[in-house]
Amino acid sequence: MAGASGYAGGEILRLLLAHPQFDIGAVTAASSAGERLGGVHPHLVPLADRVLEPTTVETLAGHDVVFLALPHGHSGALAAQLPDDVVVIDCGADFRLESEAAWTAFYDTAYAGSWPYGLPELPGPAGSVQRERLSGATRIAVPGCYPTGISLALAPGFAAGLLEARDVVVVAASGTSGAGKSLKPHLLGSEVMGSMSPYGVGGGHRHTPEIEQNLSRAAGEPVTVSFTPTLAPMPRGILATCTARLREGTDLSSVRAAWEAAYADEPFVHVLPEGSWPATASVVGSNHVQLQVAVDERLGRVVVVSAIDNLTKGTAGAAVQCANLALGLEETLGLPNAGVAP
Amino acid sequence: MAGASGYAGGEILRLLLAHPQFDIGAVTAASSAGERLGGVHPHLVPLADRVLEPTTVETLAGHDVVFLALPHGHSGALAAQLPDDVVVIDCGADFRLESEAAWTAFYDTAYAGSWPYGLPELPGPAGSVQRERLSGATRIAVPGCYPTGISLALAPGFAAGLLEARDVVVVAASGTSGAGKSLKPHLLGSEVMGSMSPYGVGGGHRHTPEIEQNLSRAAGEPVTVSFTPTLAPMPRGILATCTARLREGTDLSSVRAAWEAAYADEPFVHVLPEGSWPATASVVGSNHVQLQVAVDERLGRVVVVSAIDNLTKGTAGAAVQCANLALGLEETLGLPNAGVAP
Amino acid sequence: MAGASGYAGGEILRLLLAHPQFDIGAVTAASSAGERLGGVHPHLVPLADRVLEPTTVETLAGHDVVFLALPHGHSGALAAQLPDDVVVIDCGADFRLESEAAWTAFYDTAYAGSWPYGLPELPGPAGSVQRERLSGATRIAVPGCYPTGISLALAPGFAAGLLEARDVVVVAASGTSGAGKSLKPHLLGSEVMGSMSPYGVGGGHRHTPEIEQNLSRAAGEPVTVSFTPTLAPMPRGILATCTARLREGTDLSSVRAAWEAAYADEPFVHVLPEGSWPATASVVGSNHVQLQVAVDERLGRVVVVSAIDNLTKGTAGAAVQCANLALGLEETLGLPNAGVAP
Amino acid sequence: MAGASGYAGGEILRLLLAHPQFDIGAVTAASSAGERLGGVHPHLVPLADRVLEPTTVETLAGHDVVFLALPHGHSGALAAQLPDDVVVIDCGADFRLESEAAWTAFYDTAYAGSWPYGLPELPGPAGSVQRERLSGATRIAVPGCYPTGISLALAPGFAAGLLEARDVVVVAASGTSGAGKSLKPHLLGSEVMGSMSPYGVGGGHRHTPEIEQNLSRAAGEPVTVSFTPTLAPMPRGILATCTARLREGTDLSSVRAAWEAAYADEPFVHVLPEGSWPATASVVGSNHVQLQVAVDERLGRVVVVSAIDNLTKGTAGAAVQCANLALGLEETLGLPNAGVAP
Repeated sequence: MAGASGYAGGEILRLLLAHPQFDIGAVTAASSAGERLGGVHPHLVPLADRVLEPTTVETLAGHDVVFLALPHGHSGALAAQLPDDVVVIDCGADFRLESEAAWTAFYDTAYAGSWPYGLPELPGPAGSVQRERLSGATRIAVPGCYPTGISLALAPGFAAGLLEARDVVVVAASGTSGAGKSLKPHLLGSEVMGSMSPYGVGGGHRHTPEIEQNLSRAAGEPVTVSFTPTLAPMPRGILATCTARLREGTDLSSVRAAWEAAYADEPFVHVLPEGSWPATASVVGSNHVQLQVAVDERLGRVVVVSAIDNLTKGTAGAAVQCANLALGLEETLGLPNAGVAP
Repeated sequence: MAGASGYAGGEILRLLLAHPQFDIGAVTAASSAGERLGGVHPHLVPLADRVLEPTTVETLAGHDVVFLALPHGHSGALAAQLPDDVVVIDCGADFRLESEAAWTAFYDTAYAGSWPYGLPELPGPAGSVQRERLSGATRIAVPGCYPTGISLALAPGFAAGLLEARDVVVVAASGTSGAGKSLKPHLLGSEVMGSMSPYGVGGGHRHTPEIEQNLSRAAGEPVTVSFTPTLAPMPRGILATCTARLREGTDLSSVRAAWEAAYADEPFVHVLPEGSWPATASVVGSNHVQLQVAVDERLGRVVVVSAIDNLTKGTAGAAVQCANLALGLEETLGLPNAGVAP
Repeated sequence: MAGASGYAGGEILRLLLAHPQFDIGAVTAASSAGERLGGVHPHLVPLADRVLEPTTVETLAGHDVVFLALPHGHSGALAAQLPDDVVVIDCGADFRLESEAAWTAFYDTAYAGSWPYGLPELPGPAGSVQRERLSGATRIAVPGCYPTGISLALAPGFAAGLLEARDVVVVAASGTSGAGKSLKPHLLGSEVMGSMSPYGVGGGHRHTPEIEQNLSRAAGEPVTVSFTPTLAPMPRGILATCTARLREGTDLSSVRAAWEAAYADEPFVHVLPEGSWPATASVVGSNHVQLQVAVDERLGRVVVVSAIDNLTKGTAGAAVQCANLALGLEETLGLPNAGVAP
Repeated sequence: MAGASGYAGGEILRLLLAHPQFDIGAVTAASSAGERLGGVHPHLVPLADRVLEPTTVETLAGHDVVFLALPHGHSGALAAQLPDDVVVIDCGADFRLESEAAWTAFYDTAYAGSWPYGLPELPGPAGSVQRERLSGATRIAVPGCYPTGISLALAPGFAAGLLEARDVVVVAASGTSGAGKSLKPHLLGSEVMGSMSPYGVGGGHRHTPEIEQNLSRAAGEPVTVSFTPTLAPMPRGILATCTARLREGTDLSSVRAAWEAAYADEPFVHVLPEGSWPATASVVGSNHVQLQVAVDERLGRVVVVSAIDNLTKGTAGAAVQCANLALGLEETLGLPNAGVAP
């Protein structure tokens, strides 16, 4: 587990503690190396006396699975030095994008290539699903937190040919842990509590190309998305409100049917009964995605709202789910199936 | 002040306490009549020993200005019995909509007609501004909280002919006081804290026709809006993320110029410097609107984000501002010009 | 599981879902009987389609373990009708107090007697520990949430004879879920967020006699406690600040030694390393208790601070822990050993 | 206004903006000098285009009143260079303590002496009140935020001879703005929200000697206090729970009478009606103190709970109140008399 001092790393450790098949090996960090884990993550009581080791190939050697939760630009070199048969699950952005051009437009480090994309439930074209590419893989790129909630919300409609590729608009609210542990004034509790604010407005957020990649694959044509993220006064959770124009002649009931069919057999994605709406509190600490779909008939638009925990299904839960698939274990093993509410 | 027991009523009283020209007369309520105001609004210390009177024509008689903060459907009958020269400021929905059809589509009570619409800064067609209709008026309908933030965000673009009338999408997050003091399980602190959730999805929110009325007037053509409100874990504030397609050939700099021109002389509406983004915490308790405008060139869309306090500029501040205009006082009198932050 | 519609009931179900040895049988409620569980507890996704049955002896029959999470006064009659060899774990107050006089002074229903007190880690006199009374018991009274945090904080000092029995002062802050799901104005999100307030001041809180019972047993003499609970703007968690006078001549190092010895082998109670302080966020969703002890030498007082999750270790976790003990299972089975943070 | 970039400085500016007699002169800071005020305090809209000047004698020269909101140890040298007839109001700790020994025990800079203590309402011995020392003063030390809430809570009882000087215990919860704007991990929103934690446990908090100084003066004998501060998940507010032993033979009604008499004529300190309890939300942004007193007859202890806004009455409001007194203005001028709630 490399990059264990951050919020994503802490959440991976929390899940691994409850996993019946994984033992926690080396736990590494960069600037926090040498510290007690109990000081960095006081909630991980059973690991309190572990000491963080430096993140090097040596400390990571000898494990069956290596989880990387590093700032972008650091995973490539490290992964290249790990044996091919070690399962490497990267929670960073480095290997998510298939297009070098898209990478270069949004990131400042060299393009590292792409790995199988770790969103097992993602509907693809012609009834395919992303899971197929993940079983037995030894390198997997865990999706970004926003792309997880947003892609799962809209992909069923694109895969079913119900949505137009233009004028897709997404506004999402994220808890503050999505911004990490960095010491920035606008992330102080005094500033955050009682306040909502946007950031990365106007198309600049790095998750935009990843969302478009997922939806374009489902649609079989290029989909563009106006995406605005906002910061909400809560530690965890993403609520994504996603709207798109319906293709003319789209039947109302076919909309609901498309979404329900896409996730009928999924253990972690739930289309709620009509009249219920997702709330981020319902999925805190769990690997679930809650979805609801509505049609605004007057405007001919669909509105899909999804709720995830950015740290669990949005990062660490997906990482463990992918590791399960990579190793041929039951996909749901060790993953919480209920949120911690209220 | 009728309807003083709710959050809007409490906020009007808070502002009146600091107003140099108003004395607080009768303070009335329905089911809370007979209670000490100190029990209902413990923050209004100077009024703690006042007793709430019942809301009747008799208790409201003899005042120069009457503020109504009642559930919709109650203002009409009451206002009809007040003398024509008494200034009546209605914070409810009853007199906001000019179209009986729009009213009937969204409300369950009889259409009561429309009063001058109390959003002084709202840009109209041909350089007009709503303020002109309010000076000296004796009946004014205070806008809804969402329509205030959203209309001010988008109207400059429509008035300047820069935006297309279709595929306007708005997602807004409101603090819980916007839902009032009603005892509903989903409004309990245990449910609200740490959670974001949507409501009124799919075009059903009653503020939609009011938003469309405002934008259509500015545009000179019918504008339709996809509007999704969400509930945020904070007591006050609305952050509205508003996006629309730019007319082809729209010059980037002309976008910014249009917004800056619209509000250059407004005391309560501020287009922030480039690089700064609104945060609801910055406007808590104040009558200010903070705006920022961005263009997503790739998509040809504008994204405008506004922050208001739903109880102040969104309701009570607007009510006092309108009363000032109605009485020929300085428009800004008694209105807080700085937010309570952090 | 009787009383499943409340927060305590929901938390018991959440824990049972992850328990390797329990299957969830009937799930019952009073006024919510007939509702989908998914509507009442949307976070319990795997149980969403279960329907709440009425709480009767018939619906509860045929289970090996019955958890009761009912308002006080309801457990006695129900338990009397369940077979003696069925394990009944009562999360209510009915069977916690050994003194009928204490019960009558604080409660308005008839005294029902007392059951073995379900706080396994509680130090008693002469090196005894409460766990001894629970193995194989078929009736267990789960402690109140405040008494759990407070008794574990102070009992080691009383058991070791280090503390004076007078001038014990405790001030505790609880998350709002401790007040349950009742629809009271002061529990609305708008009122709770951003606010701290006390309640039950002046000795009136019903948990006071339970705390004194626990500490008196440890001390071997009557201990009296000044206890003030406060409501904090968070859904879960209790932080208890507990102070007592040290017996004259008490050696500093003996204080720390007493606490460390009391919990050295406990899986769920942790005395933090010197310099670290408990935070409720660290124990959210977990069965852990975090403690720290300081001595104010100038005043000759000890200050002990404890953090628990009121719904987990404070109620539902303790219930499952007691059920494990009653059935001869491993005490820690199915209980989360790490908090959900941040 | 020196030290304008912090939370205390921002609050002073917010109050001065609404003050009818003060114009805001130079606004200075240390490391933020040169920045736009709109970037540092986006809520202070009318000052947005002001630029922060460096904190020097030169920039502060030529004002009738100078407010200092600096880290401790900086006020002395600066004040010494300002003319004697300039009113200097120091919000830091430098001049609060009358005892050099007490200063040296808790602070790491040289003792600077003491100025008149700026808590006008503080009851002293023999019916005296602190206000008498402040009218016309040209140097005033604004109290710390905790000492304000705690001293006002307990001093009436000591001044009236009703309380014992030993075993006074205070536990207080403060909003995060009390910890300032410093970039420390435990102040991040992700860490703070949903969490309560203590700090400075065991007598180490610097406000302890200031509290004891105030209470000892009222009592006419040395009073010692066990004080534990905790951090609450809210931006503003202090709730202090203060308990002390009643002198034997103290009559119940005499307790209430003592507190009510002490504050009967105070505009900013309110003893609530019996049955009502203070809540920090009620005083947010206002200069009010809300108090309630209860007697625990069984234990012979009094419990007094106070609520203040740490930034307003706890710092900036007190500063403006003192400036009013120093200049011979009406004491309440420009000070908000109602909280911003909900």
